[in-house]
Amino acid sequence: MILTVTLNTALDVTHRVPRLIPHATHRAAAVTERPGGKGLNVARVLAALGRPVTATGFAGGRTGAAVRELLADCPGLTDALVPCAGPTRRTLAVVDESSGDTTQFNEPGPVIGSGEWAEFTERYGALLAGAEAVALCGSLPPGVPVGAYAVLVRAARAAGVPVLLDTSGEALRRGIAARPDMVKPNAAEVAELTGSREPVQAGRDARRRGAHAVVTSLGPQGLLATTPEGTWQAAPPRPLSGNPTGAGDSAVAGLLSGLVEGLDWPSRLSRAVALSAATVLAPAAGEFDPCTYEELRRKVCVTGG
Amino acid sequence: MILTVTLNTALDVTHRVPRLIPHATHRAAAVTERPGGKGLNVARVLAALGRPVTATGFAGGRTGAAVRELLADCPGLTDALVPCAGPTRRTLAVVDESSGDTTQFNEPGPVIGSGEWAEFTERYGALLAGAEAVALCGSLPPGVPVGAYAVLVRAARAAGVPVLLDTSGEALRRGIAARPDMVKPNAAEVAELTGSREPVQAGRDARRRGAHAVVTSLGPQGLLATTPEGTWQAAPPRPLSGNPTGAGDSAVAGLLSGLVEGLDWPSRLSRAVALSAATVLAPAAGEFDPCTYEELRRKVCVTGG
Repeated sequence: MILTVTLNTALDVTHRVPRLIPHATHRAAAVTERPGGKGLNVARVLAALGRPVTATGFAGGRTGAAVRELLADCPGLTDALVPCAGPTRRTLAVVDESSGDTTQFNEPGPVIGSGEWAEFTERYGALLAGAEAVALCGSLPPGVPVGAYAVLVRAARAAGVPVLLDTSGEALRRGIAARPDMVKPNAAEVAELTGSREPVQAGRDARRRGAHAVVTSLGPQGLLATTPEGTWQAAPPRPLSGNPTGAGDSAVAGLLSGLVEGLDWPSRLSRAVALSAATVLAPAAGEFDPCTYEELRRKVCVTGG
Repeated sequence: MILTVTLNTALDVTHRVPRLIPHATHRAAAVTERPGGKGLNVARVLAALGRPVTATGFAGGRTGAAVRELLADCPGLTDALVPCAGPTRRTLAVVDESSGDTTQFNEPGPVIGSGEWAEFTERYGALLAGAEAVALCGSLPPGVPVGAYAVLVRAARAAGVPVLLDTSGEALRRGIAARPDMVKPNAAEVAELTGSREPVQAGRDARRRGAHAVVTSLGPQGLLATTPEGTWQAAPPRPLSGNPTGAGDSAVAGLLSGLVEGLDWPSRLSRAVALSAATVLAPAAGEFDPCTYEELRRKVCVTGG
């Protein structure tokens, strides 16, 4: 199985409103709830691809219970979340139907105690024993040490499990120094890390900081992979319009599943870009349409070598 | 005891953000949760005044369970909410700390089935037997008949229990025709009902439509009472700045407690205006400071007769 880690899971709530007007009262016409946090999104995409996946991280309170209830409806996904005392955060995405734009309101997440963090690292170690690959995704909730991802990367490497890190800021800076097999920043995150706004240069710099391979998401321009085997860029076959929420998480799912299947970089990137594009085109944020995915996968343009 | 009815209870969530920027991502610095819906606010104020109060209406799902858990922390308040299958709505108030303004995002509420509505009316009938007064407050959740408040007003009158109705739109129009003892619209609601933007005229028109007495909230100008005994206006002693959320519900609590104590109209109005003002001045939305209340109560200016 593939293991995904989401330390700051979320209950993602989406409201659709005719128009967002600051300081007014809005009545949502439609409300949806989904399990959230980057690693849970990755896990759901992997499960939808038919790949066995285990999701760990923290879940607490009524919102945590709601997240776990929603995960129970995902066939192929094993819930290995560790209970915590504080409540799992909610995120509210307000979709303005007049413009299609989304305004996001995020709670900070539960404060994780040192005992809870110790319990998690023990559980994580046990889960690594059965994992083909592991993805460490998203922000750190309050209370988790800022060097947490470095600890988790080292444990994966010690267990011989390939590890992908998808985070930002100080958590990325600390985590990358522990030499993960792959990082997947976006252009802004890799620029913040390296100080370089030029993606090829920034990718090289990020490798120098410790990542074995760097896959930078360039938004509508697709993905740029900077690896020991070469440098590739993979782009969707046509400009896409839609909701980019979760597109990066779908790319991570594509990269990881390609890794465990032993695909070469161009094939991994084609899969990742097609999944990402199929997510942008799907009507619901963070979902993807399997037919669109299959159609796009054959048409992704990969250059480099 | 006083009975309050909140058919569309809510879990009121408040986020404080430095500034609300449409289409941006906001991380709330502070998140608070309170039981919500007008009738629950009225009940909490009555309980804080030391008056025994029973709250009924619907609660369902995890949000309903959270509301009931929060109500259990209010001494003097008896929870007589009726379970429903759909989840109680959330409301999110986003407070922009740069301006103090609030942007509100409300869910519609659970769909109430006809069996649930029948169960509620039976419970309501039983609770009326022990009630000194009843307040019917707020919007109707989906599935509840639009004439619901007329049914509940008639049942209270048949049981000889004074009934106050605080709602708007079609629910107010239908409910007022059943001859409640009191309605408490704001200026906009009474204008919508009567077509008159002049509050004294609109109050008279609303009485002609069936209300025994009409108490119109005029925002910072206080309250206007149009009654068979005379017409009074009661205003706070000084202009107030603060958060008006819940101020109208505090006024209802003041009017109801004054009614059951047999106070005359000027005393009821002083209490209602002082409670309302103490709510505007309180740091947390919907709370009030007892000392501010006592101080203001002696200073409210009541004119008319």
